[in-house]
Amino acid sequence: MRLSLLFGKTQREIPGEAETISHQLLLRAGMINQLTAGVYSFMPLAWRSAKKIMDIIRDEMDAAGGQEITMPVLQPIELWEKSGRGAAFGANLFKLIDRKDRVLALGPTHEEVVTDLAAHYIQSYRDLPQRLYQIQTKLRDEPRPRGGLVRVREFIMKDMYTFDADDAGLEVSYQKMVQAYKNIYRRCGLKAMAIEADSGAIGGKASHEFMVLAESGEDEIIFCPGCGYAANVEKAKFDKGSSIEQIPLPMTDVETPGKESIEDVAKFLNLAPSQMLKCVFYIADKEFIIAVIRGDLEINEVKLKNLLKATDLRLATAEEVSEQGIIAGSASPVGQKAKVIADDSIVSSINYVGGANIAGRHTNNVVLGRDFNAYKTSDIASAGVGAKCAKCGGTLESTRGIEVGHVFKLGTFLAETFGALYTDPEGNQKPCVMGCYGIGVGRLLAAAIEQNHDDKGIIWPMPIAPYPIHICGLSLDNEKVKEAADKIYADLYTAGIQSLYDDRIESPGVKFNDADLLGMPLRITASPRTLDKGGIELKKRSEKTFTLVPIDNIVGEVKRMIDEQMKAAA
Amino acid sequence: MRLSLLFGKTQREIPGEAETISHQLLLRAGMINQLTAGVYSFMPLAWRSAKKIMDIIRDEMDAAGGQEITMPVLQPIELWEKSGRGAAFGANLFKLIDRKDRVLALGPTHEEVVTDLAAHYIQSYRDLPQRLYQIQTKLRDEPRPRGGLVRVREFIMKDMYTFDADDAGLEVSYQKMVQAYKNIYRRCGLKAMAIEADSGAIGGKASHEFMVLAESGEDEIIFCPGCGYAANVEKAKFDKGSSIEQIPLPMTDVETPGKESIEDVAKFLNLAPSQMLKCVFYIADKEFIIAVIRGDLEINEVKLKNLLKATDLRLATAEEVSEQGIIAGSASPVGQKAKVIADDSIVSSINYVGGANIAGRHTNNVVLGRDFNAYKTSDIASAGVGAKCAKCGGTLESTRGIEVGHVFKLGTFLAETFGALYTDPEGNQKPCVMGCYGIGVGRLLAAAIEQNHDDKGIIWPMPIAPYPIHICGLSLDNEKVKEAADKIYADLYTAGIQSLYDDRIESPGVKFNDADLLGMPLRITASPRTLDKGGIELKKRSEKTFTLVPIDNIVGEVKRMIDEQMKAAA
Repeated sequence: MRLSLLFGKTQREIPGEAETISHQLLLRAGMINQLTAGVYSFMPLAWRSAKKIMDIIRDEMDAAGGQEITMPVLQPIELWEKSGRGAAFGANLFKLIDRKDRVLALGPTHEEVVTDLAAHYIQSYRDLPQRLYQIQTKLRDEPRPRGGLVRVREFIMKDMYTFDADDAGLEVSYQKMVQAYKNIYRRCGLKAMAIEADSGAIGGKASHEFMVLAESGEDEIIFCPGCGYAANVEKAKFDKGSSIEQIPLPMTDVETPGKESIEDVAKFLNLAPSQMLKCVFYIADKEFIIAVIRGDLEINEVKLKNLLKATDLRLATAEEVSEQGIIAGSASPVGQKAKVIADDSIVSSINYVGGANIAGRHTNNVVLGRDFNAYKTSDIASAGVGAKCAKCGGTLESTRGIEVGHVFKLGTFLAETFGALYTDPEGNQKPCVMGCYGIGVGRLLAAAIEQNHDDKGIIWPMPIAPYPIHICGLSLDNEKVKEAADKIYADLYTAGIQSLYDDRIESPGVKFNDADLLGMPLRITASPRTLDKGGIELKKRSEKTFTLVPIDNIVGEVKRMIDEQMKAAA
Repeated sequence: MRLSLLFGKTQREIPGEAETISHQLLLRAGMINQLTAGVYSFMPLAWRSAKKIMDIIRDEMDAAGGQEITMPVLQPIELWEKSGRGAAFGANLFKLIDRKDRVLALGPTHEEVVTDLAAHYIQSYRDLPQRLYQIQTKLRDEPRPRGGLVRVREFIMKDMYTFDADDAGLEVSYQKMVQAYKNIYRRCGLKAMAIEADSGAIGGKASHEFMVLAESGEDEIIFCPGCGYAANVEKAKFDKGSSIEQIPLPMTDVETPGKESIEDVAKFLNLAPSQMLKCVFYIADKEFIIAVIRGDLEINEVKLKNLLKATDLRLATAEEVSEQGIIAGSASPVGQKAKVIADDSIVSSINYVGGANIAGRHTNNVVLGRDFNAYKTSDIASAGVGAKCAKCGGTLESTRGIEVGHVFKLGTFLAETFGALYTDPEGNQKPCVMGCYGIGVGRLLAAAIEQNHDDKGIIWPMPIAPYPIHICGLSLDNEKVKEAADKIYADLYTAGIQSLYDDRIESPGVKFNDADLLGMPLRITASPRTLDKGGIELKKRSEKTFTLVPIDNIVGEVKRMIDEQMKAAA
């Protein structure tokens, strides 16, 4: 492709609205264009990359026994009423009324449609397993689209749905998908990690997320270098320590003048923070909630929200707290009318120091079950760096990533609802056991950039680069250079290597900056100087050093470097 | 692919709702599934075919200098208000209101979005030409979806948009596209024809349709075997004969008792029908219209509707005619209050015989311009078989087809509206000259079946067949047969040939019927009988005769036959 003809133009300025690196770079590179909030056009270079990603995905889905189909964007609302998931998706579900006054939803996902299809075509245990996938446009009316391609309202997704006879079958399909997803990220040239995750609105029994690791990632991942345990911080478990046997002692008050924070009070009383109770106040769907946790731990709001099955959760304001008659800085779960939710950390011990609900005073020997009751007791604590791994006792670490895939064990609830039943060898009708598995193509592309860039621009991994190589022809008004650059471009094409050829009349500075911004993995520079030295300069985008290559060796050398980088990801 | 695992099942019964052959066969083959009116899922076999069609399209678009992009389904309604085309699309335009109360349209086509993109990225004559295309989902709320994949509400379309500096540039882009389209149909193994067409709601200056010829096609095409002229009957022109010089004679009435039809009156008066005037009455958007044409010709309602720029046109009822004081069977355009529209055929001569508007009586020597006036005079006649070609004087013939592509010269109106301007070498700002070009993928697939089938099922053209070959293993409980059939399946796969392998325990009748219905171009039969004779039977789906091929020669022979059929389309 000649850069002079390429549709899309680079820009120097960092677009004001772009917060994330991938968003900034995709806009600056002229690779995407926003039509309206969370809705983008893919320009030629980004689309080439997306197609390569889709090819890799398709290949791995087929290898895992997948059959590709395509299901519609337009879905009768009745399907969503039947599954009951319309409510869970809420305002995220786009709806319209057609010319015959029927309500149609725009598919945010396709469990309903595919289960309806399965009900048509699956009859016998002989028809199982089925692994169906599509690569298709999804629409979700996200409340806060952001991050360029990271959180959008329209996106291309590969979604697979598996139908098995039983849980053991689902386990096989699920593990095949987990492996296929790992292969996909590796083959895209990305470092990714499978972690335990929450099922959210999709529903089901168990799920894993796949994270592309990137410093700029929006998700925090807790992992154990010892045993390989990894989970989203929203879900991560850890060892909170075993219980210490103690005799319950009577509550006594103690003066703590001017001490309000856990740290200050603990220090003043010469205690460890883990001997104290921490109270945090929330409004969950308009209800006042007191969350109680051991003093050395933090509340995880996602865990708390899921435990409460709340749609909306936020910290209570100072006013809302004092309306409850609670004295901040000396709050106590004892004697409260509001619902108390306790982290399981405080079950493991007794005789905690809590607030006295009187300013400047605390209470010794507070005991859960004796002095106050919890509406629910569960794990609502955030796992942090340095916490103890619940699986192996190792020390947990933290990293950041971007979710690029999510797999779910759905079970039988949708198959039962839609009548996706099969007859087993004994003649009994049973529901199919389902799994579903999604990868967002644009999200993956953005994550690849978050993981692979420097301050000058994108550094595409070879397998998903729009073009493997960028040819900079400098001083193309010089006949000799133009001839050489044209020949390299043509020779590479003949050898099956499509390249991006900067044939514009621009300064070397503009050309090098654009090459760095656009980020093809290899770069050739042809100029009067390099030709005088006997060839062209060949360099990797990720490195500063270059090699002088004689014109006649270029095709071979470029091929070798492409193969080398492709193999590293294979 | 093992048929035992394939998602989708064949059915014997012809589905009641399916009128067209392709609809019937696609449903019976389990290749498509209707979710709601005009909205289909593609099952694995149909989707494989669609992907092959898309690959061929992509290849030809790239070869014609196309750059592939992807634009969104969701489009702000403001774009459609700005272009003014929202009204032209009317209720066909799906609209929804998002969570922030903004109105979004679902793209029925992408002229608005692409011109907006062009306004961003095209600045100079150096940026031209641009040829941008996508293969993407379109949504149109068709009033009467029908024919399976022929007229639907959701479909995948390849749409290209070209931007040129001037009309000469557009002509180059347009001709490149016409050639690319011809290549696409040929490479898909289809017989197609480019014909002159009407621009409809898309707008613009000129357009051509591409028709896949098929007896069952819904469109009538008029063509001249002599000079190659071809047009949709809705648009076709023909030579109506040159004028005969005559002196205008005074009107005189003549008794024609009991004679009402043109034929009867002409015979009675010993005249040719071409010496008479024919009046036909219409209601165009609630207005009564009298269409007048030479007695030997027929009114073309599409031409009349376009001439009147009417949204709705229908024949007037007998009651509506008599309300106008018109005597049917003796109607005259003379002395009418209603609007008269005249076909240009009646300009070429004078002294016609018309009705006298009195039962049983006609009038001689009616002259347009003297005895009655026309509101408009234009070509509103239907070209029929046997008419004279306006280009070469040859005799026109008629055939039927299905529209599978449409190309338009749009001109500058959208570029002006959206500011898609470029600066020419002299520094003047000018609007880009645009063209647009569409192919419906599912429509093409359906048309391929309309053109290629027999009473037993589909006969896929090799280039777009889901699989090139269907292996029928008969009596697979016989170890020897099973081993041979498994080996053939594996050997073909190793040789790069994916096949459909009927490995089910079913009778030969069921297997052969399914093979004929599914329609892969080649079929292998392996049975105890063929093995006893020393091999397997290989036959074309389109022929009855088969060849006995020794097991060791199968891969070579299959390859040869595939190549042969691919070359025929290349």
